[in-house]
Amino acid sequence: MRSRPWRSASAIPVRAARPWQSERDTVTPRVPQALPSPSVPWGPYRPKAFEGEVVPFRVTAFREGHDRIGAQLRLFSPSGDESLHRLVALEDGFDRWEAEVALLEQGVWRFRFEAFADDFATWEHAASLKIAAGVDAALMRELGAVLFDGAGAEKSRPAAQRGVLAGAARLLRDPTVDDVEALATVEDPAIAEYFRERPLMSLVTLGDDLDLLVERERAGVGAWYEFFPRSEGAKRLKDGTIKSGTFRTAMKRLPAVAAMGFDVLYLPPIHPIGTENRKGRNNTLDPQPGDPGSPWAIGSEAGGHDTVHPDLGTLADFRAFVRAARAEGIEVALDLALQAAPDHPWVTEHPEWFTTLPDGSIAYAENPPKKYQDIYPVNFDNDPDGIRAEVLRVVRHWIAQGVKVFRVDNPHTKPLQFWEWLIREVNTADPDVVFLAEAFTRPAPLQSLAAAGFQQSYTYFTWRNTKTELEDFLSGLAHDTADFLRPNLFVNTPDILTEYLQFGGRPAYRIRAAIAATAAPTYGVYAGYELYENVARPGSEENIDNEKYEYKLRDWAGAVERGDSLAPYIAQLNEIRRAHPALRQLRNLSVHWSDDDAILVYAKHLEAAVSPDGRADTVIVVVNTDPHSVRQTMVHLDTRVWGVAPGEPYEVEDLVTGARWTWSDHNYVMLDAFTEPVHILHVKEQR
Amino acid sequence: MRSRPWRSASAIPVRAARPWQSERDTVTPRVPQALPSPSVPWGPYRPKAFEGEVVPFRVTAFREGHDRIGAQLRLFSPSGDESLHRLVALEDGFDRWEAEVALLEQGVWRFRFEAFADDFATWEHAASLKIAAGVDAALMRELGAVLFDGAGAEKSRPAAQRGVLAGAARLLRDPTVDDVEALATVEDPAIAEYFRERPLMSLVTLGDDLDLLVERERAGVGAWYEFFPRSEGAKRLKDGTIKSGTFRTAMKRLPAVAAMGFDVLYLPPIHPIGTENRKGRNNTLDPQPGDPGSPWAIGSEAGGHDTVHPDLGTLADFRAFVRAARAEGIEVALDLALQAAPDHPWVTEHPEWFTTLPDGSIAYAENPPKKYQDIYPVNFDNDPDGIRAEVLRVVRHWIAQGVKVFRVDNPHTKPLQFWEWLIREVNTADPDVVFLAEAFTRPAPLQSLAAAGFQQSYTYFTWRNTKTELEDFLSGLAHDTADFLRPNLFVNTPDILTEYLQFGGRPAYRIRAAIAATAAPTYGVYAGYELYENVARPGSEENIDNEKYEYKLRDWAGAVERGDSLAPYIAQLNEIRRAHPALRQLRNLSVHWSDDDAILVYAKHLEAAVSPDGRADTVIVVVNTDPHSVRQTMVHLDTRVWGVAPGEPYEVEDLVTGARWTWSDHNYVMLDAFTEPVHILHVKEQR
Repeated sequence: MRSRPWRSASAIPVRAARPWQSERDTVTPRVPQALPSPSVPWGPYRPKAFEGEVVPFRVTAFREGHDRIGAQLRLFSPSGDESLHRLVALEDGFDRWEAEVALLEQGVWRFRFEAFADDFATWEHAASLKIAAGVDAALMRELGAVLFDGAGAEKSRPAAQRGVLAGAARLLRDPTVDDVEALATVEDPAIAEYFRERPLMSLVTLGDDLDLLVERERAGVGAWYEFFPRSEGAKRLKDGTIKSGTFRTAMKRLPAVAAMGFDVLYLPPIHPIGTENRKGRNNTLDPQPGDPGSPWAIGSEAGGHDTVHPDLGTLADFRAFVRAARAEGIEVALDLALQAAPDHPWVTEHPEWFTTLPDGSIAYAENPPKKYQDIYPVNFDNDPDGIRAEVLRVVRHWIAQGVKVFRVDNPHTKPLQFWEWLIREVNTADPDVVFLAEAFTRPAPLQSLAAAGFQQSYTYFTWRNTKTELEDFLSGLAHDTADFLRPNLFVNTPDILTEYLQFGGRPAYRIRAAIAATAAPTYGVYAGYELYENVARPGSEENIDNEKYEYKLRDWAGAVERGDSLAPYIAQLNEIRRAHPALRQLRNLSVHWSDDDAILVYAKHLEAAVSPDGRADTVIVVVNTDPHSVRQTMVHLDTRVWGVAPGEPYEVEDLVTGARWTWSDHNYVMLDAFTEPVHILHVKEQR
Repeated sequence: MRSRPWRSASAIPVRAARPWQSERDTVTPRVPQALPSPSVPWGPYRPKAFEGEVVPFRVTAFREGHDRIGAQLRLFSPSGDESLHRLVALEDGFDRWEAEVALLEQGVWRFRFEAFADDFATWEHAASLKIAAGVDAALMRELGAVLFDGAGAEKSRPAAQRGVLAGAARLLRDPTVDDVEALATVEDPAIAEYFRERPLMSLVTLGDDLDLLVERERAGVGAWYEFFPRSEGAKRLKDGTIKSGTFRTAMKRLPAVAAMGFDVLYLPPIHPIGTENRKGRNNTLDPQPGDPGSPWAIGSEAGGHDTVHPDLGTLADFRAFVRAARAEGIEVALDLALQAAPDHPWVTEHPEWFTTLPDGSIAYAENPPKKYQDIYPVNFDNDPDGIRAEVLRVVRHWIAQGVKVFRVDNPHTKPLQFWEWLIREVNTADPDVVFLAEAFTRPAPLQSLAAAGFQQSYTYFTWRNTKTELEDFLSGLAHDTADFLRPNLFVNTPDILTEYLQFGGRPAYRIRAAIAATAAPTYGVYAGYELYENVARPGSEENIDNEKYEYKLRDWAGAVERGDSLAPYIAQLNEIRRAHPALRQLRNLSVHWSDDDAILVYAKHLEAAVSPDGRADTVIVVVNTDPHSVRQTMVHLDTRVWGVAPGEPYEVEDLVTGARWTWSDHNYVMLDAFTEPVHILHVKEQR
């Protein structure tokens, strides 16, 4: 028997639902439904999830008056598996209903909400109150018997159930049974469960058929590492010049990256670098001999986007690098930066892909009055078909080399329409390809890129550092935009070294890594972070002596030996992520409270029914976000989130230090930023 | 020449927009648009406005990169008037664009947003920065000349504009003109205005065609009064019994209602009252002889919903009452309560409109275990067509008597679908008919009833009494739900006497009336409020000796004479509402600040361009919401809302007391709840 493509505590046996004959002359259905989710506010785009993701399916449903309603979710997996899930009322006063389902199959799922009058629940509510109050007891018993008769006659019910229901009907009608005993039958939990599974439905209202795209797990879950292959194995020669690293030398760094526990290795552009107007060290305009230039100034006479920089080796070397990474359990991600150095082959072969000015020159990239003379931006409107074909060719070329992950540079400076087309085109042939949007821009374009197809997005994470900023930000990622936007919480990039890291000392590096690794299922680290590289080019938010413009020679092993490396802590974080499925989910974050204005508290919880190993998993993270302090405070937890009644004790283990405590809903913590600024606590399963 | 059916500061000459040939294979347009409003979140319902309402039309629009975009709104009035309005960027970081338009014609309007690359704005931005910085000056001048040439050749531009543009192009190209002088042309505000009116558009993207229903002014604006006609002119006879008031005696009260300034007079049900299981005084189950019963227990052998209670007079008397009211400038609103007393003619003629129980009896209304034995609820599912036809017949019957306003009792206990059908059916034949929903229920059904068609809704106003509650509540009404829900802020009803009124003393009555009358364009008062009737039936939120179950004899004139009546203050409030068009708008409320936790501050502002008399109108309301105190504090105002720069002085006049002050953005106030708990300040127009 094929296993089910979902996990859920809400599943009930599949039955067809016969819709009530709604009047055809209103847009309002008999049992109104509204605001179904997952959904996307930005346009007619498909919401998305990743394989294994626990998705809350929600709808607002209500009816007039006091009678009870029920709601169910009908799910069709891409391979045609049909399942039915009973929704529960969230009881928040907003008539919101929910079922959580873990989706285990890649492809386009179809889902539909079905709302109905729940005739058993209406009767049960009235009968239990009225019989207890001695009002209309005989009438309520007879009404129940009629309901039970009907249910007992349903062929689709297990025979045992039918027998119980027929017996209950007899009992309700039996004049020798007094009301007290009858009441026990009304309130029998087994009978309630029979009706939960096979509700007595009337006025059945079917919602719209909706789509949900489930992508592969890596689209949503992964620890990313970024390095410049030219730096890995680069050597200072006796004459003081530096010999570039190559794919072959960089390969030697792969075991260390794997040992830190990373899943994806992202390489900045590996293509030939332009020589015309090349940038020198620290973004200067007068490069010195030997300055390698920015990898984002793509293209020279050696080739363009489909070519490997000769300094790095050959295409065969690159393939070998990809294979070596795969052998370490690491996927290689390439950069897709759609722009050209002035000496890119495109410029002479396809000047129509750029903007030609009245003086016949090609327009440089600019942010007036600044000009970036090492780069020509592509003009997507002159020859859209030509550009589409060329970019698709380039992407497929790298897919053919074994690359399935692309980090897209500045997608918000290219038409959104283009990305929708490209990603759909690529994913139609190869649904495993993942695109990460580097769109550091305003919320509307950032979110729209995700909505239009990008599997992942950089976010404002690096600029959210205080407790209140992080509470709002992390909660927003988990609950407001998760239907279409998956964050990749990079802690730093070659372009971003925030003030928090510049001035927060080593505690800041530990704090930010712990938050990134635990708050979202995908996060990233750019090489050098583990060495606490925190000196910025004056007046900028970038590292000084930036690797974008030069080789970096780093003593990885020496730093670890000297105890000067964050690598062991990062390895521990990634190990914790692997051991705890709750940390590999996006939507399961809940914010909790502390009395201190720097102590951030959040939890990630996974119910047993939707967990891959059938066991609940709960991780509580308590962070001192002030890297300059030792703080003690009380933290306050809504323990009901993980099934513990308020005030009840439970055991927690600090996954970093191994310390164990008995916790409750109010707990004392002391977090010393200079030693362990973060508790990552696992809630031990209750017996 | 027919006058325009709109007022707006954003109107520009109508021109056809040729859409850019969007690729047909994406759902993303070239210039993305999202979240157009007015809109309704609850389903495929039409947003609405009232005649004269100033509607903010908004859309999110953006494009890739740094080039500037523009957006315009194309409006088609029901009679076919086409207009074009330039949107302005709200500059809030969310890529939101807006144009405010006052809509002056009843019926279904069509609107569409059009977004485009604004080629002039892109050039102007780059040219002004680059020429000033000495970068590419010649190139930028030539690019501008090319743009001006193109615009100067447009036949639709006034000849004078074309001449200026051609001259500017020549100047930009003139080598004897230096860059400083050329820069003046680039930044010439007259030229910018030419391009604001007739932008140079490329990549034009048309949004969807959307609908907006504009209803008559009374659907959105009015002061309501409620009285029981049986009480008005009722007399205590010598034997102690009370003789019912009639339409003829109640008519005598109309001049006083008109003198208080009310526009609508709502009458509780005027139909025969059931005798079976009639309720006695104070909702008791043992009525005494002479107890008139609840008007909501509709129907007896004297007739049902299409009949007048014999005690009140005849149908001809009712028509005379409606005429007399109209002569006083007052519309009569009737109650539509779809339920029946056990002796209603429906019960014998159409038992299928009710629920028959297994014992053959008809089900009473209930809220288990409570039963309401004086009322049978209608079952809308047994014979939906029959019920529809009957209710439509009843409503049309009263329309034929001159009634165009209905207050609908408990619409949330009847199918939403039914209301959508009924209101559409009635409004198709008579678009002037207004339905007010008395739906004191959860937000989803309450808002859905408004979305599905109700012109007005009772709200949670009576239960929003503190400063922070009112800030959120009033702001929500004006900005979150105004596209589909129009509040009617009744200060009290026969069912609602809140603790705030029970225990707040006379100041509470003044405070709540002032807020209701100024915060929303429609509000209401149930008779007795002006006499400070504040004693509740113990344990309930209703008046004791409730008028629902008995006649009330009130000494209106005596109370005024003794200075014991709020009527003069209410009259003053209604006079202020008539004099100030800003108070007759829903969406123009802005919340401001005070340092006191009970001092509420809000303002209503109307721009001159959208005001009926062409003059701006601003009213600032400052309320001491604590009826037990004298409070003094500073209030802090964002005076930019009414066009005053921060720190600038302006004159205000208290419309209640006539006091005048010079105000600024920070002002001292002292509000004595026992004398004048509310400032209603008019901002004097600036010269």
